Amino acid sequence: MNTEPDQIRLNKIADTEHEIFALLKQRYSPRIFKDKKIETEQLKQLFEAARWAASSNNLQPWRFIYTLKGSDAFNKAVSCLSDFNKSWASSAPVLMFAVYKKNLKDGRKNFHALHDLGLCLGNMTIQAQYLNIALHHMAGVDLEKAQNVFNVPKEYHISSAIAIGYYGGDIENLPEDLQKSETAERKRVPQEDLVFKNAWKK
Amino acid sequence: MNTEPDQIRLNKIADTEHEIFALLKQRYSPRIFKDKKIETEQLKQLFEAARWAASSNNLQPWRFIYTLKGSDAFNKAVSCLSDFNKSWASSAPVLMFAVYKKNLKDGRKNFHALHDLGLCLGNMTIQAQYLNIALHHMAGVDLEKAQNVFNVPKEYHISSAIAIGYYGGDIENLPEDLQKSETAERKRVPQEDLVFKNAWKK
Repeated sequence: MNTEPDQIRLNKIADTEHEIFALLKQRYSPRIFKDKKIETEQLKQLFEAARWAASSNNLQPWRFIYTLKGSDAFNKAVSCLSDFNKSWASSAPVLMFAVYKKNLKDGRKNFHALHDLGLCLGNMTIQAQYLNIALHHMAGVDLEKAQNVFNVPKEYHISSAIAIGYYGGDIENLPEDLQKSETAERKRVPQEDLVFKNAWKK
Repeated sequence: MNTEPDQIRLNKIADTEHEIFALLKQRYSPRIFKDKKIETEQLKQLFEAARWAASSNNLQPWRFIYTLKGSDAFNKAVSCLSDFNKSWASSAPVLMFAVYKKNLKDGRKNFHALHDLGLCLGNMTIQAQYLNIALHHMAGVDLEKAQNVFNVPKEYHISSAIAIGYYGGDIENLPEDLQKSETAERKRVPQEDLVFKNAWKK
C-alpha cells in the first residue's frame, strides 16, 4: 500500500542554517521513483539546462549517454552498476552516464573537465527539481565495463551513473535496509568547517 | 554614463533549443558587477546552498576561502590571478577560492572530489542567481601561489577563483576589448553533439 504521496518527502527538506532557494532546499537523492516514464521533452530540458552551464574557456567537456527502462541499453546500464546500486536503481525510468572529455585540443589534460561536468550537473539538477524530477548520482559503477559496453572513446571518461525519475513511488518496494535510509534525516558538515574568511582556518 | 540598467543584460539570456527554468536561462558570467557590497547574510546563503549539494558518499569535499574588496586578503587574492583576470576581477566585491579535499579517509584519491566541488558550485550559482548575484569562475589563477598565500594544507587543492557580485555596473569601466565580449552572443555546442541515446554516437 502506498501511504506516501507521489511527491518530495517533507522530512527530506534540508534543515538549513540560512534560508536557501526552495528548489535547492527540497532537493535530495531518492532511491525510489514514481513508476512513470520521463517525458521526452522534459529529458531534453534537462540536457538543455546542462548545456548552458559555464565551463573553462567554454570548452563544454560534458557528454551524456542515457537509456530508458525496458530497453536492451538500459539492461546493459544496470549490468554496469554495483550490486548495491542494482538493488534500487534498476527501477528508475532513466539511467544515464555522465562523461567528460579528458584533454584540451593541444593534448594536455583539461584539469577543469571533471569540475565542469559537476557544474553542469548542478544546472541539470535544478531543472530536474523544477519538473519534480530527482537525480541520484552513483559512484558505484564498473567504469571500465561501462566504457566498453557503451563504446565510449578513450579520449572520454565516464564519471558516474545517474538514476533519474519523478519523485514519488512506494517506499515498500525498496529492500528493508534502504527504506530506513530513504527516510533518514539529511546531514551536512556545519558551514563554519567549510567556509573560511581571508585564509584557511587551522 | 551608465546607459545599462543594474540588471542582467537581456542579450545574454540563453537562446535555448528547449525551454529551461528562468534562473538557468538568465545566468551568465559577467566581467562587470554593480558597485555594491554583497550582504553578509546573502554570502552565507550562497555557502548554505553549496553545503546541501549531493556528494559521493556524502563526503562534502568542498571548501571555500573568500575575501572582501578593500581588505588585504582581497589584494592578495588579486595578486594570484592571471593578468587578464586582474584587469576586470579586481573590481568584484568578493573574490573566492574553491577548494577540494583530495583524498578519502583511507588515503586513496577521491576521484569524485573535483566533480562534487563543481556540483556544489552549481547549487551556489542558482542561489546566487535568485539573489541577482553572478559568479564568474576563473581558471587563470596561479594555483601554487594561492595555495601558499592562503595557507591551504597540502591535503587540499584549489580548483578555481570565483569573482562574485551583483549583476549590473557600468560597462564603460571595462577595458575596450572586454566590452565587446561582455555583450557578445553566448554560444554552445548543439545538444545532438553532447547527448547520446543508448550508446556513444560515432
